[in-house]
Order: sequence, then C-alpha cells, then structure tokens
Amino acid sequence: MGGFFGVVASDDCVADLFYGTDYHSHLGTQRGGLVVRNGDEIVRSIHNITNAQFRSKFEEDLPKMHGRMGLGIISDFEDQPLVISSQLGTYAIVTVGKVHNLEHLTKHLLNRSGTHFVEIREGEINPTELVANLVDGEATFEAGISKAQQLIDGSCSLLLLDQDGIVAARDRLGRTPVAIGQKEGARAVTMETSALPNLGYEVEHFLGPGEVVRITADGIETLTPPGDNLQICSFLWIYYGYPASCYEGINVEACRNRCGAALARADDVEADFVAGVPDSGIGHAIGYAAEAGLPYRRPFVKYTPTWPRSFMPQEQRVRDLVAKMKLIPIEDLIEGNRLLFCEDSIVRGTQLTDIIRRLFDRGAREVHMRPACPPLLHSCKFLNFSRSRSELDLAGRKAIVDLEGSGDVHLDEYADPDSDRYAAMVAGIGDRLELTTLRYQRLDDMVAAIGLPREKLCTFCWNGEELYGEQSASY
Amino acid sequence: MGGFFGVVASDDCVADLFYGTDYHSHLGTQRGGLVVRNGDEIVRSIHNITNAQFRSKFEEDLPKMHGRMGLGIISDFEDQPLVISSQLGTYAIVTVGKVHNLEHLTKHLLNRSGTHFVEIREGEINPTELVANLVDGEATFEAGISKAQQLIDGSCSLLLLDQDGIVAARDRLGRTPVAIGQKEGARAVTMETSALPNLGYEVEHFLGPGEVVRITADGIETLTPPGDNLQICSFLWIYYGYPASCYEGINVEACRNRCGAALARADDVEADFVAGVPDSGIGHAIGYAAEAGLPYRRPFVKYTPTWPRSFMPQEQRVRDLVAKMKLIPIEDLIEGNRLLFCEDSIVRGTQLTDIIRRLFDRGAREVHMRPACPPLLHSCKFLNFSRSRSELDLAGRKAIVDLEGSGDVHLDEYADPDSDRYAAMVAGIGDRLELTTLRYQRLDDMVAAIGLPREKLCTFCWNGEELYGEQSASY
Amino acid sequence: MGGFFGVVASDDCVADLFYGTDYHSHLGTQRGGLVVRNGDEIVRSIHNITNAQFRSKFEEDLPKMHGRMGLGIISDFEDQPLVISSQLGTYAIVTVGKVHNLEHLTKHLLNRSGTHFVEIREGEINPTELVANLVDGEATFEAGISKAQQLIDGSCSLLLLDQDGIVAARDRLGRTPVAIGQKEGARAVTMETSALPNLGYEVEHFLGPGEVVRITADGIETLTPPGDNLQICSFLWIYYGYPASCYEGINVEACRNRCGAALARADDVEADFVAGVPDSGIGHAIGYAAEAGLPYRRPFVKYTPTWPRSFMPQEQRVRDLVAKMKLIPIEDLIEGNRLLFCEDSIVRGTQLTDIIRRLFDRGAREVHMRPACPPLLHSCKFLNFSRSRSELDLAGRKAIVDLEGSGDVHLDEYADPDSDRYAAMVAGIGDRLELTTLRYQRLDDMVAAIGLPREKLCTFCWNGEELYGEQSASY
Amino acid sequence: MGGFFGVVASDDCVADLFYGTDYHSHLGTQRGGLVVRNGDEIVRSIHNITNAQFRSKFEEDLPKMHGRMGLGIISDFEDQPLVISSQLGTYAIVTVGKVHNLEHLTKHLLNRSGTHFVEIREGEINPTELVANLVDGEATFEAGISKAQQLIDGSCSLLLLDQDGIVAARDRLGRTPVAIGQKEGARAVTMETSALPNLGYEVEHFLGPGEVVRITADGIETLTPPGDNLQICSFLWIYYGYPASCYEGINVEACRNRCGAALARADDVEADFVAGVPDSGIGHAIGYAAEAGLPYRRPFVKYTPTWPRSFMPQEQRVRDLVAKMKLIPIEDLIEGNRLLFCEDSIVRGTQLTDIIRRLFDRGAREVHMRPACPPLLHSCKFLNFSRSRSELDLAGRKAIVDLEGSGDVHLDEYADPDSDRYAAMVAGIGDRLELTTLRYQRLDDMVAAIGLPREKLCTFCWNGEELYGEQSASY
Repeated sequence: MGGFFGVVASDDCVADLFYGTDYHSHLGTQRGGLVVRNGDEIVRSIHNITNAQFRSKFEEDLPKMHGRMGLGIISDFEDQPLVISSQLGTYAIVTVGKVHNLEHLTKHLLNRSGTHFVEIREGEINPTELVANLVDGEATFEAGISKAQQLIDGSCSLLLLDQDGIVAARDRLGRTPVAIGQKEGARAVTMETSALPNLGYEVEHFLGPGEVVRITADGIETLTPPGDNLQICSFLWIYYGYPASCYEGINVEACRNRCGAALARADDVEADFVAGVPDSGIGHAIGYAAEAGLPYRRPFVKYTPTWPRSFMPQEQRVRDLVAKMKLIPIEDLIEGNRLLFCEDSIVRGTQLTDIIRRLFDRGAREVHMRPACPPLLHSCKFLNFSRSRSELDLAGRKAIVDLEGSGDVHLDEYADPDSDRYAAMVAGIGDRLELTTLRYQRLDDMVAAIGLPREKLCTFCWNGEELYGEQSASY
Repeated sequence: MGGFFGVVASDDCVADLFYGTDYHSHLGTQRGGLVVRNGDEIVRSIHNITNAQFRSKFEEDLPKMHGRMGLGIISDFEDQPLVISSQLGTYAIVTVGKVHNLEHLTKHLLNRSGTHFVEIREGEINPTELVANLVDGEATFEAGISKAQQLIDGSCSLLLLDQDGIVAARDRLGRTPVAIGQKEGARAVTMETSALPNLGYEVEHFLGPGEVVRITADGIETLTPPGDNLQICSFLWIYYGYPASCYEGINVEACRNRCGAALARADDVEADFVAGVPDSGIGHAIGYAAEAGLPYRRPFVKYTPTWPRSFMPQEQRVRDLVAKMKLIPIEDLIEGNRLLFCEDSIVRGTQLTDIIRRLFDRGAREVHMRPACPPLLHSCKFLNFSRSRSELDLAGRKAIVDLEGSGDVHLDEYADPDSDRYAAMVAGIGDRLELTTLRYQRLDDMVAAIGLPREKLCTFCWNGEELYGEQSASY
Repeated sequence: MGGFFGVVASDDCVADLFYGTDYHSHLGTQRGGLVVRNGDEIVRSIHNITNAQFRSKFEEDLPKMHGRMGLGIISDFEDQPLVISSQLGTYAIVTVGKVHNLEHLTKHLLNRSGTHFVEIREGEINPTELVANLVDGEATFEAGISKAQQLIDGSCSLLLLDQDGIVAARDRLGRTPVAIGQKEGARAVTMETSALPNLGYEVEHFLGPGEVVRITADGIETLTPPGDNLQICSFLWIYYGYPASCYEGINVEACRNRCGAALARADDVEADFVAGVPDSGIGHAIGYAAEAGLPYRRPFVKYTPTWPRSFMPQEQRVRDLVAKMKLIPIEDLIEGNRLLFCEDSIVRGTQLTDIIRRLFDRGAREVHMRPACPPLLHSCKFLNFSRSRSELDLAGRKAIVDLEGSGDVHLDEYADPDSDRYAAMVAGIGDRLELTTLRYQRLDDMVAAIGLPREKLCTFCWNGEELYGEQSASY
Repeated sequence: MGGFFGVVASDDCVADLFYGTDYHSHLGTQRGGLVVRNGDEIVRSIHNITNAQFRSKFEEDLPKMHGRMGLGIISDFEDQPLVISSQLGTYAIVTVGKVHNLEHLTKHLLNRSGTHFVEIREGEINPTELVANLVDGEATFEAGISKAQQLIDGSCSLLLLDQDGIVAARDRLGRTPVAIGQKEGARAVTMETSALPNLGYEVEHFLGPGEVVRITADGIETLTPPGDNLQICSFLWIYYGYPASCYEGINVEACRNRCGAALARADDVEADFVAGVPDSGIGHAIGYAAEAGLPYRRPFVKYTPTWPRSFMPQEQRVRDLVAKMKLIPIEDLIEGNRLLFCEDSIVRGTQLTDIIRRLFDRGAREVHMRPACPPLLHSCKFLNFSRSRSELDLAGRKAIVDLEGSGDVHLDEYADPDSDRYAAMVAGIGDRLELTTLRYQRLDDMVAAIGLPREKLCTFCWNGEELYGEQSASY
C-alpha cells in the first residue's frame, strides 16, 4: 500500500523526517525515498529496500541532507519522491493509493502533444508521475489536485513540497488516512499517527475526505475543505494499520481488542487458551481472551530479528517461505491443548493451512479459528493492497465454486451471515482448512467495534457495496 | 553472547545451515559467519551485520557454497568461523562464551616459541583463535578441548568441523546450552532449539556439562561423557533465550508464563490490566494475567520492522536511542489506567525510567513493576552478556550506594528478600524509577518456575554464589 | 563530452553493446548507462562511474539483460538513457552535445500546460529529457528530431530505440561524429569507430551533418538526408578522439602523425630527442620525430593502472592531483638533455607549468614545446567539453591581458600567426611557462594535416569563426 | 608477483602510503592491503581488487587511518598485511616472493605442537603467515628473518612494522628489488622506485641481497649486511618492471631503449616502421627505431580507460579476452606496410598469434618480430610470476617437441644461438606464428643492455643456470 511522511520545521527537519518515514516501513517492501528542500536546493535519495531495512539504507545519506522541510515515502512499487519542474514551478511529490484507470489516463494525456512520461520501471508508467502530470495541467496546485482527484478511479492521497511548505491532500473519499501532528516549531504530516509520539508530536488534525491543506511551521491553511462523504477502509483497523495508530481518532489496538471481545461474546466454544496469528491477530486475541476469561498464550512466536515486517512481499514463493519460517511453534503450549486462534481475515487460506497442519502435527487437540471480520468476497478496487491477488483465490470464493460450480453467483446471499448459503460456505472453508470449528465476525459487530457510522466505512471487500460513485469527472 | 549452529547431512546442507544460523540472530549484533566443507574444499564467509540482517548479507554468498557439512555463527565481537591448520589437521572452529583470563593465557602461549596469533581486530586477540591454539597443543581434539576447558576461566562451548563431521563441546559447567537435532539424513547442532522445528529437525539430545561428541549424519559418538556439575545460566530463561527454545528440555515461554504466575500469586495489587515490557517481559506478563484473572494488554507495541532485534547494541548512545524509538505508546490503553508491567529484570533502570515517565506523561494513573527475577547485584563473569557494563551501574547497587555510601557492603543481606536492607533497597529503586509499586520475584519462586534443582542453576548475578570453582587447571 | 553506442542484431546484442559502450569510456567521467529492448520489455541500468570503471559497474547487470537491440552511453553529467512514453510511443533515448539555450527552451516548454520535467539532478533539468520533450512535440521522430535540431543552440547527436530498431541522428552541422558499422547479422552505431574492429564490425557509413537514419539488422533507411554544411570539430583529431578512431574517414593517429610532421617541417630547433605529453601529444611527437629524423623517447610515462582515463575530471582539485600523479618522470632520459615536446594544445597551461618545472628540476638542459594547433582564444560554444572552464583562463587570453590590460581586444590580430601581436602573445606564453622555445602550429598546417576543406571544419576556438549561423528556428 | 611499499615519517604518513602502494598496482591483480600504526593502535584494511582499482577501494578507508608509519601491499593471491602477535611482540608483515617449499615447511612447522595457521584461503596456507611463523621461531626479527631466508626455497623479500619503525629485508639472492627513498622528515621503502619521485622522495639506498635494515624517520640501521651473491631477475628490466623504475640503479626504460638498439644493430631487415607490442614492447621498439633510423609508429593502441593494467589476470579465459580487447588496430597504419614489432618475449605465443593474424587481416604486407630476449625455455622457480603456467606451453618448448618428439632434450644446445638446433627451433616458432621473419635477442646482448655483470643476473628462464644453490638450511 505504501505510506508517506512530511515535515515542515523552523529548524533542520532531517532527523524527524528520517525516523517518521521509517515508522511507515510496515506499509511497503520495495522502495524508500526521502527528499529535503533547502531554499532552491533539493536533495533526493531513493533506495531499493527489498533486501534491507529503510534505516540501514538511508543512514549514510543523512549527512548530505539539510533543510527545514522534506518528504519521505515507503513505496510498494514505484520510485518516489519525484522532483518535477512544470508551469507550477519545481516541486517534489509523493503519492499513496491506486490509480485504477492508469492506462486510460495515460493514453488520454499522451494524446496531448507535449506530454511525456519519463519514470518507467519494468515497462510501467510511474503512477506518481501520472498524478503530477494531472496536477500540472491546471493553474494552481489546488485546482490541479482537485482535477486529479476527480479523474482518478481508485484513490490518491499525496504530499507536495514547494519552496513555501507542504501541500497535503487526502483522497476524495478518505479511503486512506492523513493526519497532521504538531510540536514546538514544527508540523508533521503522516499516514500513521504511530509515527508521531516518539518524535514529540501531538495529533493536531485528521484531514477529512478530499481535504487539501498547506502546512507550514506556523500553521495549517485550508485550500480545499473536506467533503461530506467518507469511505475509509475498514481493513486499516482489522489488518493493515499499526496497533499504535489512530484513524479518525480511533486507535487500532483498542479497536482490535473490541473486535476480539465481540467475537468472544458471540462464541460458546470451550478452549484451553486463546492465541493470535501474528501480527494483526494478536490484538484481536487479547480482546477475546479478556472477554472470555480465558488465558492468552503464544503457541507461535514470530522471529522478528529476521522476518521483521508484517507486510507481505509480492512474490508468492517468497511469501510462502516467509509464512513458514517467520513463525516458530512452541510444542509445550500446543501439545494436548484446545487452541482458539484469532486472525485478521482468512484471505486465501494457503498459509493458514500450513499453520493449522503444524499445530495438529505437534499434538494440538482442537484448533478453532475466529477471523475478526466476515469472509472476504471481493478484491479491493481502491487501494493498492496487493498487485497480483486474484478474486477467485479468496477462500470464500473457492468455497462458493465448490458449492455452485461458479464463484460469481448469489454473492449477496453469501454475504448474509443468517443465510444457509453463508453457513455452507463457512463450513466449506473450515473443512478445507481442517479446522475443528470456524466462526467469522459479523459485519455489524465489526462495524460496532470500529465505532464509526456504517456509511462512513468502506465494506466493499465483504459485501461489494460501493458508495458515492467512482469518480466525478472523466475525459 | 553469540550463538552457533552446525549441520552434517547426507546431502547438501547449505539451506539448513543458512536458516539455522539466521535463527540465532537475536544473540549477537556484530559479525555473522558461515563455513561449508566439501571434501578438502572449505568455503568461508564472514560479514559485518551491525547495520543489516544476517539474511541479506549472506544471501549472495549461498550460490558459492556447497557441501554436506558446515558451521554458522552469530558473533558479538570477533570474526568467526576461523579455518585452522595445525598438527590436528585443517578444521573450522566457532566458539561461544567468555574467556576471562584471555590475556593471561595469551601471554603464556606466546612464551612458547612457535606460537603466534594472526586474527587481531582493534588490537585484541581473537578469543576463538586462542581457543584453537589451546586445542592444538594436544594430540587429539578430545584431549585439546579437555585441556582448553580446564584452562579457561569463564566458559566456552564450541564446534569444530573436520573432514569427518562436527565435534561439538559444551562448556565445562554447562553455562551455555548445546542441543542436537535429527531428521532423515541429517543432524544439526544448535544453541537455540527454536532453530530446529521449521527446518524439520526433532531434538535428539541435550549435551550435558563438559560433554564432547562427534556428530555425523549417521549418529552421535560420545568423545567425553557429561560431567556431574551443571551451572546453566538462569537468565537464559528469564531474558536471553528465544521463547520457542528449550534448555535442558524446559521451554522458555512456558517458563516465563510460570514466572509471571508466581509473581501474581505473591501479589495483591489492584490493576486494570497487565502488560509486558517487550520482548522478554511479554511471556512473564501473559503468565501473570492468566493467573491473576486480569486482562493482558499492549500499551506499548514494538516497531519490529525497524528495531527487530531483542539484543541490545553495545554502544550506549545507540542503546538509548533504540530504547526510546522501538516502543510506541498507545495512549488509549494508558490514559486513566492502573498498569501492571512485568519485566525481565531491571538492569540499570535507565531505559525503564524513560518508559515509566512516558506512561505517566500519557495519563497513566498507576504504574506497577514486577521483575521476573530478584535484583541483579553482580555482573556476569561467565558469559559475554555485555562487554562494557559496570557492576556499579546496576540499579540495585546504585540503591545500595544511596543507602550505605558504598555499593559493596552487606551484599548477602541485600540478596535476602526477607531482610530490611532488601526492603530498603527495593524501595530506593522504586523511588528512583517513580513507580507506584515495585515488587521483585523471589529467587526460590524463580527457581521453581524454571523447574531445575537449584544447585544446577547459576544464580551468581543475584547472590554471588559460584559453585564448582573456576577452572580445574592452570599453567 | 560523452559518447554513445547502439546495436541492432538478429541475435542477442548485449555483449557487443557492453564492450562497444565501454570503448567510449574516455569521453566521460560521471555516468554510464545501458538499455536493452526485448519486445515490449525494456531493461535499463545507470551507474555512477566517477570512482570506478564502466566495466566493473555493469558486469553484474549483464545477466539480467537480454535483447536484440540496445543503446549505451558514457555521460559527462546527466543520467542516461531515459525511457520515455509519449504520443510517439515508448522509446529509449541517449544524446551527446550541448544545449546552450537549455534554460530558454525549458521556460518555453513549461509555458505549455501539460509539459513537465521529471529528471532533475542537483537542480538542473536533464538535457536529454529536454530533447525528448522537443521531439515529442511533433508527429514523427523524423519531424521531432528536425524540430529539435532547429531549436537547439549548440549541438545534439542522438540515438532513439523503439520496437523496430534504432533511429540515429547527427547534429545539424555535424560537430560530433556518428558512424555505422556492419557485420553478419548486426549493425552498430557509434561515435568512435575505434569501438568497431574488435567486435568484428566494418565501417559501413559515416552520417553526414543533420542526417537521420533508421538502423535495423537488415539495413539503413534514410529518414532525413545529410545537409550541405559541415562544421565538424577539428579538436577531435587534435585532442579528444581516440587514436584508433576515424571521423569523416580520416584516422586520428595518422592525422596526429601528419600534424607532428608539419611542426617538424616548420621547425629548426636542435634537440636530443622528441617526446609527447601523454596522451594526445604522443601521436604528434611520433610524427615530428620521424619527419625530423630525431629519436622519439619517453621522459614521462603515464601510470595507467591508476590513472587510466585521458579525459579530465571536472573538479579542479582532482584535476591538478591527476595531472601531477599520473605522469612519472624518468630522470635518466631527462638529465642533461635538450627535450622537444609535442602537445595537443596549451589550454590554460597550469598543468604544463608543473611538468616543465619538474623537467628542469630533474636536470633538463632545454625544454621546447610544440603545440599541434594554434593558441586557443575562444571557449567552445558547441560541444560540452568542460562545464566550468572560463575563456579568460586560456593561456593565450592571459598573455593578451598581460599585454593589453584586457583580454578582449585585437583578437583577430592575435589569431594571425604573421602579426606582431601574435608573436608577442606567444612570447608571453613561453615566458610564463619558462620554456626554452615555444612554437605553435599554424592553422593552415593543422587544416592540411587533417585533410578536409577548411570550410568543413569548425575552427571557432582559434579564430572565433562561426559558419552557417546558430540555429534555424526559434520559439 | 606483488609489490610492497612502506613509510616511516615524523608526521602522518597515510597519503604517501596510499599513493606509494597504489603505484605498485601493475604488480598484482587480486588483493590490496594497508596497515597503519599509531602507537599501539593498528588499523588494517584489505580489499579484493580483482574488479576495481586499488584507489577506488581504499579511498573510503583513508579517513579512518592515522599514524606516522605503515605498510602497503598489492598482492597476487593472499590476504596481506597480516597483524601478528608472537613472542616478538605485535607486528604487521607483508611479503613478496615465492615459497617453493611451502608444503614441506608447513608440515614441518605443524609437527611442532603449538603451531597453527589461521589465514587460509581456498584451502591454501597463506605464505605470509608461514613466513611470520618462521620468523617467530627465533629470538629477534634479525635472527628470525635470517632463519626464514635460509629455509625458504624460492625468494622472499619482506617488510615488518613494529612500534619502532619498519624492518625491511631483501631476499637472500636479491631476486626481487628493495629500495629506500628519503625526503625531509620521512623515509619510504619500495619495490618500484617509480613510486618515489611524485611523492617527493629521492632514492637513498638500494638494498643488497639478503640485506636487512631497520628504517625510521631518522635513519637506516643495518641489521644484516648485504651478501656477496646477487641473482636479480633479468626479466624485471625486460618485462615486469615499470619504465620509470630503477633496479640496482639502472632505469628500465633506458635499458629497454638499449635492448631495442641492440636488436637493430644485429638486424638487416627492411621495414616501413617499427612498433612495439604494448606495454613492455614499446621501450624496446623506441630504441630499435632510433638506432635503425626508422620511424616509430603505433599500429595498435591500448585502450587504457578499460584495460589499464599491464599485468595479466590468472584466469586463461579472461587473459585471452583482455589480450583481444585491449589493443585496437589502426588500419591506416597497417595496410600495405612492412611492420617490424619489438616484443618483450614470446611466452606461449597464443596472444601473439591473434595479433599477427589481425595485422595480416588488415592488410599488413610483412610482419617481423624481434623479442628483446632469447627464447624462454624454463619456468621461473624463484618468483611468483604466474601460478599456473606450464613449462611445456612455452613457445620454445613446443617447437622443440615438434622437432624432437619431446620437449626435454638437448636444452643446452637449444639455448645456444649459434647452434643448428636453436635455428630450427626459432624457425619452428616463426612458422607457427606465421611471421615474415623472427629474430630473438642474444643473451649476451641483453646482458650488455642491462649493464650488470652476467653473474649478478638470474638467467634461469633462458639457459636453466642456477647459481649459489637453493637454500642454505633445511629442517
């Protein structure tokens, strides 16, 4: 998915920029980048972080970087930040999101003579360059961002750095979060508020959907006020977000604790203890255990010195290896026990199959699985969660194919937890995983655990509902 | 401290060697090394891992490595493995431990004409070369290892690789653990048994104190039987060991859960929930929470993508930075709450001071600290826990200095949990840390939680007791 | 200055591309780049070659590169090749030359909405991206290149790689050379023909001024025929070019031999032997020695293992260090001797001053200097010889300042070898350098040694003559 | 072969050490090393220079190095310098030479208990560690070096660095050169005197055979006076040495000029011009041309930016590639001409075969070859010229095999330039190379060109003569 961070300060900002960006490392696996502006001097650095941590790659660049404002990015694919010269001046840009209609927009822009794209990697246009190109077509950043937001099918939050500070924009429907932190003499803009406390910032403002602001050390100026319609991704709380982060003022770990409690209240299974599938399952499991009055235990521990990231690499082979190697089983806690596991969501179930088999191999008596959300039935169209994941690989869809011969029928019914079809699908998933029992969270319980009105949350991946249309303009 | 891993297989062993060594990454921060033997061909690789993970540094060496047996090491300081030619042939060697009398032994050896040392880093003799030198002075590996064990003041476990397989030796009093795992066609020797399950090995044998064995793919041959006297480090269970490891057959996580339960049984404080100071405090906290019937929560989460290691760097400046940056507070779980924290041991208390202050800053009502062991009063003489830590910096000693004007008086009394002096010292530590309450584990309870007879455990750092003398021979 | 190389073949072209580009290493010091096209797949690699040879930097990239056509570049400053998507499709581009009106053209293009520049290094627009932008404004490569050539003040030769092959264009007045080589199943396009023989290519065609061709493995198609007016840089033969190269069919080494012979014919000094200031002075000296019947000797040898390049780094401090360290004097050949040195051209004279002093320090009786061309009086406006060299630092100009109090007067007269002012200027230069005698080549003799009609050669740096105007179009 | 350099100064010596060592880059291709001593602090750095220049590898180490004395090495194989602790104290050591009886000495030393070897690469003992081991067996450096020189079959010059300065020793028969240079406040010790002038040193002393001296900033102290018997390698002047170097006070370039002149005097062939096979053939050719009154020309130029070294890599495949790619032919100077080439020595003739074929392919009318020494008939036993070259691959031996059916018969006769067998052998070599004519230098003429008495020169590779025995002691 990627994550960005920016700072504007009255003194040198490089240390804050470095650590603040580093605190987004869980959001991307491929590229990291920093850019610092010192008057007209712009110093940029981009590194491949596939095989090394952001910190170790950028430490040696820091002495060369000086300035009172800068941007940082952890990117899942493309090189960022870009430094652009256009009629709007020279500025740096980072983006997070997904441009679904990238090819369409590219073709359109290329029909205008004078437009070209330079940043190409492995044959693909750099989406951030496309966004810059859309912005450059208008007379001001404000107008350009507005035009870009209208044209992009998907989502795009972004930061621009010019000589006067940072322009921050949250995507049109607020699918991704953007927050501003403040401390004496400095402001930071961040996707994860967990980046703020250790650097001394307090949260000052959560941007609303489509809101655009200019940030300086002195204050925040609204360029475009927030829109009325919010569709923030529910999965941020369930899976993607860092436990210490807040979105719309709601903390992830506390939300996961509530999710687990809701699962416990709806449950009646007898178990010896509760455990979480690392990393995101842990917060859910802790909540379940407390509510159920059962011990929380760790029959698997993650080997973080070697497999530190919670975000999965793109390549399937590496993904499976990581899945196997990162979790070390503790036989003493498994053998002879009835284990209840909380998990974020059974996505495709392939790694879970391996985990469950290893539990039974080491003598587990029973294995009960409690995902913190309903079965996933639709692939995300709005955020760049994974570049290659097919909808029909989802565990729920595979179960539907088994039942119906096709994965595309009766999807509304399969999304209804009170229907027979839903029960049959869940039974199918549980059988395939060879679980003792499987019970998913109900959507209403999940929404209540988050605590926002349902119409403000995107629930597309569970029920296919898409509010407020796709985009408000097109060529 | 460092950790080693070795494999002898009937097929190529490189993948197992790589991952098995990598699973010791939490035990050292400076050097990693691999050596593989293919007939007479020996390929060795050593990398600086200060600023990058073992995995990323060694991945590119793997294609050049082929062979059915090899050794790996994570080292806290010196370059390893060494490849040695001597009257005993050509062999590779790795060691873990601490040679307290390094200078004395070096001087003695240098007085013999014909002895020299080649591996010098920053002016110091490489302790592993010294050990090899001691071994080389005798007619067989068995006799040489025996002689070395008698001469070394401290501890030394080691692996030797010759053309016939691996010779593994546990230090004379078994202060460090060595275990052998077995699977079809291969044997592995390891410090941490957590390295075994994901590679398919089952634990076959725990070496006893001073035991020396030759390991081949076909079996284990005893060269020197285990001694009678065991003095394994208790701190392995409390702090150093990985949760999924077993020493003497006793699992770390389960032991920590028992430690926490013992703390809970001895406690009567009222708290809203129980938390652990990551990483080692977590297992203790989970045990406390379950025993006390209190919820387990995570008011701090560790940012593992960036600060993956649990072992502390040597440099104080970096250590404090890591201590501050790696833990992110969750205000929602802190504000207004009475928090009970389990911790491995308050070593010097400097980092804990910072953590506690941040908890109160974010609105904690009460902070109660429950270390899983008694106050540390003596620096370890036997293992290489830290190269620069001074005894008088220990939180307990500092409290004694405050009370007595000197840190070296009445130490026996201060080690007695029923004495007034002990109570005064603990009160002093708690005041300095500004804790609401502080209660340490009693040594007996800790010993019981581990589950070995007290005389088999080294408890020197708590009570200064040293059994079975230092060394059985000298020049 | 930079140099490019391209290949189109019926089989994989990567080895030829690698070595062919590498043979341009003497033309640039900062960046190297390769791009290979395999159907729609484009693989590009760019490295910093400031501190390492092209070969060692690119060797590890080769296994990842496959394809039947590609481009390579040695660049003096900017990152190349660029991969561009525009209305003309997706193509790679390399350029060599100098865009004097870069800022003007950039401003103009930025006034068009929709244009932006992405490749910025140290605050400067990448000239190659500018050229691509100019090309993209027209409907075809042919029209775009033609437009670019008309707009650029300076010079620009370029190669474009699309899915059908390479489009090669020589700059409007042919200031830089471009040649095509051919062998069974492949064609190469190159700046230096010296890149061809060891790869098996024979020269097939020298592009004329402004000529644009499409090159495939099967043949050469003329897109734009050559223009009538040629202004190729004379200095290519005198200094820049590699001895084994031919431009307009005329070999560099043979030309230098003729230059030296011409110097000898015009000379009557008595000397013990003739030597050349490495590297380009050697060819001149060999010619002089043969014509004069004097021995050729090497009182200085260049230490090529360490200072391999003949092209000078941009930074003055490094330049002076290189100048001192790369030449090792041989006292046996210096002491007591009357030395006659041939040199390409005394540019600023600073390094020569040091060389001459070292010769006298080591006992030279006399030192005579014979530059192969007239005194330089004007800085080059057309090629990117050096980014920071000031006109008033030229040895000739400094002598004029000494004589006139200003460097900008009577320049025509100073360019006339039969004038008194010329004689006074040369005397001034010789005095400043403390030479025994100094005699420059006459322009007519140099032109005759090259062998092209004078109106086809650019002689601007000697006499300020500029034929055929600067550019044929402007915004 | 390798080369070393050392400095002792009253101020920091690092810059001199760095450049002085770098000037030995032509003598080795695999490893470079520096060590600097600052009181008790010793900082050492070793890099692989196979694929990069010494300079670029060590530049980043320089800021970490400080001290008034140090050693540097370019090594053909093993890691150097070593830092050793022994009864003689802690010292650094570099060596150049060849320990023919390495295996024998190793076995002997390993029979002493207490001796071991640590520096092993690809299964081989590091010869420098062996030498250190031999030295360590005696009570003083002086005695130890003397013992080592007596035991080593081959040759060994070395430098030792202790806290008081540098101990320099030339091998017993002076096969390799060692010289000392001096300037205000500093002394340098070097193999190549060409390293001295650009650093400001004047040659102060050439060490005699077996001489051992202690060097400080203040002076030179003789530890062991030079021996009577000198057997310096003649090939240093003919091929290995750098043109600007002097050995025994005799300059290489001047010697080569004399060699060429001697060839010319003995010759009567008609040629259009004279050329040298780069690099070492050039000095010979220049001398020939001057003596013969023929023009010197360059029908081949070496592409130094890419193939800077004159010393050949060990691997045959790379060697042949280098041989082909490094020389670029100039057709204008070849076509239709009668070319006379001077060459150092036809070793195996494989690369020359290719060169000659390319000359005829490009239209040469005649190609005459004039090696500067007699045909090589014996492989060097004393210096480490090449690790893998077989005696029977020598061009002379192959010709003998063709004539006799065996390469080992009548070798004395084949070494006699007035014998029929010699004439037949030379005819055979010329035929195989397809030369128009081939005429070798006579040994007497070569000896006269060098200028030392014949008994002071080793001529083993031409006539198999070995003076003064192999070694004066053995175990």
